[in-house]
Amino acid sequence: MHGFFTPKSATGRASLIPPPPWHYSGDLLTVEYRTDPARVAELLPPPLGPAPDDPGAVAIIWADWQSCSDSREELLDPVRAQYKECFVVVRCSYRDRVYSRCVYIWVDKDFALVRGLHQGYPKKLGSVHLTRPHPYGPAAPRLAAGGALGATLAAADRRLAQAVVRLSGPSPHNGFVNAHPMAHHRWLPSIAPGAGLALDELISSGAESAEGGQPWAGEADLELFEAPTEELAALSVHEIIGGYYRQVGVTWNGGALLESGTSAAEGS
Amino acid sequence: MHGFFTPKSATGRASLIPPPPWHYSGDLLTVEYRTDPARVAELLPPPLGPAPDDPGAVAIIWADWQSCSDSREELLDPVRAQYKECFVVVRCSYRDRVYSRCVYIWVDKDFALVRGLHQGYPKKLGSVHLTRPHPYGPAAPRLAAGGALGATLAAADRRLAQAVVRLSGPSPHNGFVNAHPMAHHRWLPSIAPGAGLALDELISSGAESAEGGQPWAGEADLELFEAPTEELAALSVHEIIGGYYRQVGVTWNGGALLESGTSAAEGS
Amino acid sequence: MHGFFTPKSATGRASLIPPPPWHYSGDLLTVEYRTDPARVAELLPPPLGPAPDDPGAVAIIWADWQSCSDSREELLDPVRAQYKECFVVVRCSYRDRVYSRCVYIWVDKDFALVRGLHQGYPKKLGSVHLTRPHPYGPAAPRLAAGGALGATLAAADRRLAQAVVRLSGPSPHNGFVNAHPMAHHRWLPSIAPGAGLALDELISSGAESAEGGQPWAGEADLELFEAPTEELAALSVHEIIGGYYRQVGVTWNGGALLESGTSAAEGS
Amino acid sequence: MHGFFTPKSATGRASLIPPPPWHYSGDLLTVEYRTDPARVAELLPPPLGPAPDDPGAVAIIWADWQSCSDSREELLDPVRAQYKECFVVVRCSYRDRVYSRCVYIWVDKDFALVRGLHQGYPKKLGSVHLTRPHPYGPAAPRLAAGGALGATLAAADRRLAQAVVRLSGPSPHNGFVNAHPMAHHRWLPSIAPGAGLALDELISSGAESAEGGQPWAGEADLELFEAPTEELAALSVHEIIGGYYRQVGVTWNGGALLESGTSAAEGS
Repeated sequence: MHGFFTPKSATGRASLIPPPPWHYSGDLLTVEYRTDPARVAELLPPPLGPAPDDPGAVAIIWADWQSCSDSREELLDPVRAQYKECFVVVRCSYRDRVYSRCVYIWVDKDFALVRGLHQGYPKKLGSVHLTRPHPYGPAAPRLAAGGALGATLAAADRRLAQAVVRLSGPSPHNGFVNAHPMAHHRWLPSIAPGAGLALDELISSGAESAEGGQPWAGEADLELFEAPTEELAALSVHEIIGGYYRQVGVTWNGGALLESGTSAAEGS
Repeated sequence: MHGFFTPKSATGRASLIPPPPWHYSGDLLTVEYRTDPARVAELLPPPLGPAPDDPGAVAIIWADWQSCSDSREELLDPVRAQYKECFVVVRCSYRDRVYSRCVYIWVDKDFALVRGLHQGYPKKLGSVHLTRPHPYGPAAPRLAAGGALGATLAAADRRLAQAVVRLSGPSPHNGFVNAHPMAHHRWLPSIAPGAGLALDELISSGAESAEGGQPWAGEADLELFEAPTEELAALSVHEIIGGYYRQVGVTWNGGALLESGTSAAEGS
Repeated sequence: MHGFFTPKSATGRASLIPPPPWHYSGDLLTVEYRTDPARVAELLPPPLGPAPDDPGAVAIIWADWQSCSDSREELLDPVRAQYKECFVVVRCSYRDRVYSRCVYIWVDKDFALVRGLHQGYPKKLGSVHLTRPHPYGPAAPRLAAGGALGATLAAADRRLAQAVVRLSGPSPHNGFVNAHPMAHHRWLPSIAPGAGLALDELISSGAESAEGGQPWAGEADLELFEAPTEELAALSVHEIIGGYYRQVGVTWNGGALLESGTSAAEGS
Repeated sequence: MHGFFTPKSATGRASLIPPPPWHYSGDLLTVEYRTDPARVAELLPPPLGPAPDDPGAVAIIWADWQSCSDSREELLDPVRAQYKECFVVVRCSYRDRVYSRCVYIWVDKDFALVRGLHQGYPKKLGSVHLTRPHPYGPAAPRLAAGGALGATLAAADRRLAQAVVRLSGPSPHNGFVNAHPMAHHRWLPSIAPGAGLALDELISSGAESAEGGQPWAGEADLELFEAPTEELAALSVHEIIGGYYRQVGVTWNGGALLESGTSAAEGS
């Protein structure tokens, strides 16, 4: 049986996702803010703990991606390459090191969703939009001071978040919350009722290589909305840190198992 | 950390899927046919083997579902309850017993997709349609002899399958291919490149309870189409067995681990 | 050039919609309520006036349809036949007769949207869901006293309306607001800026034939939500009249021009 | 009653589209080719005739747009601004002048669809994708010689067209087929059966202003696929002329009525 993921088959061609490395080119719109550190802490299972500095810092990031495998064949059939996502990142500590951690994420394609299951991103489907800067015509901001970009997230026919970033100038960085290796859990319940977790791994991963353009910073507004099946709004906005825009290219090629069986997370 | 699935959180409310039992009410349109038994056998990893009788039998099933948890709250917010799926089932043998096995499946909602990951269904997203019988007006077949129902499947903007079933009369059954407990694998690659599978389970599961209406049988046409990322068309139609329609209700409440680490499937 | 609608072509086969008659089979979930009659009146351009009785009555109707042309070929390719809609109906008077009038409507397919343009329904795209009663399994209400049905509407990634109807018993009718011939305008601006309307017709139409099952009535809850590009919430709920469910079949085959050029509506 | 389009209301805010001018910023991928001139001629109703030179020339254009009204408010709620389209343009002659004419077009948003009805574009909904050049990472071509871009079109769950353009170098133009003012018909059938057309206008329009970047040219492949409700494949590819990519900005602000009632098109 061949194929990196299911469905596995005689040839492996039907697999929903190809083997890594996975390559990405895209645009990131980030809003960083501070929430109650207790709301972040309760999303960090053992052995993770709060980040030592600024433990209530949160980044919500909208991304407009193309992605592909080493063959790059997806790029000529772009329905298989293009997707958008909105994800929420906090920081945590593990063995005296600071990690980033994605606590909520919505994407709009299946291949992105199950890649997330492999990487420990807790993905759901959502409807994600972000304004695209463009050099011509009145229907886009320029990537320049004064450019205003909007971003929205919805799932299950409810709007969950919306943001506006008004660019003020170049920035030495693209934010600090999503700047560490990721510490993620990979969890799958046992098939037998009440038998706990069949998979309970703490893993780390990060970009194998990355490049990007000049980051831009600006003022940001962010609204989060309640929904019966979401807890994003519990990370309420106490103070906006800033907004950022950057074009990037990234290659991801797997990660490392940190430990197994220690998260004390509910499994059934 | 609470929640049956990711994202896990302080309350568990954000989990993409609630804990089982999962309840289903819906309509099934089935076409059964024979393909080359070798094409079925190559989808059966060890320790599974071909079914002793009619080893090339295949069922392709279109289903129009509502599903919910024990709370039934999803039924009043039906965007969270309704989905459609198309799935392909073969039979296999394991320790002298015959099992059904889903080899390909497409659904149109995220909660259905990740439930499949828990249950060992190799789900992708697709666009699924099937004609609905209705008692009034000219724009629907009646559930009666002469009623004709169509069904289609597409993914990544390509049509993958289409079928027509022309009902001829009541039937003592709804087909025989999807009539056994399911023998499924739950596979997840290791996060470290080249490290094989982190999860490699052979599990069985079936309905905890089920009920249904009178099955109907009829003549069926089925066309399968090639696509660069699918292998459904390799299960080419050698001989149509029959078409079936039935309304059913099902409750699923977990399964049992049969064995672990023996599939010899590719993991990276 | 052939074809009932655009694109017209040598054969007419590419037309987005076939010529009437158009046939429908489907399920209707209706909530009737009273709003401020002034909010209804301002949606009635000359020569229409308020209905003489109960001029603030409103019906919001969710419908789950199959539709087809005389060939019925759409029914075997159900992506071309199935759609859902949510529409808002008020009553008005014209020349001493009472008419129904659709003031807002959202559908989820293009053929339904442009049929509305022909018929004078002011259609937009939306995401529409309504609970489906089903005779088997726990994941559906039965069509019986105590059955509870939900319905939701969203557009542009915002929820606009949600309702719950709890069935109490059979009803002699399916509501009274959508029970008259429709009085609709067909408006199209001139292509030249500032040149007013190129088409300004008041037309009437109704079902050429209709049949249906036993209506059910029940208690209803309805919530309407604000959105920057919608005015549905201005028809605020002052008093719920009732909720209804009915399965129906309808044929529509054109209407009649009442008058032209008199609406005094903005055209540019 | 206010509002440029339906639904008209007391304030005009609910109108599906705002009044022109309409502004656009976006990216165009064009493939130009020659088909049988008879296939083009049969899409040109009186008083239009074939273009005097190269009457079988066709352009199929994929566009990835942001659009907005004068308020530009849509740009901060990008679900209301972004859409993609694929459209097919031929040339024709009218009173000794050459015009371009869109004969088929698919878009993926409702506001774009009904703007087309105003402008005489025969729009349907479709699923449209085109590769986006990007300056960073392996998952995008650079806008440079050797860059390869793919584009696809699907509707009703069937793929209708796919193209690949391999950029070879800068070009003095972006193709010649879509380079003239548009000559379009605005047609609406009468509401009464058999009564012909209620609106039958030949109009012309073009950009009020336009700007753009350096066009790029390259080699192109194009495949068109049959579908039961489409006639695109009848414009079969006899000879590829070339492929083009260009970023543009455009403002559209209405057009002019050329004549009325002369198309001899079917109306019912």
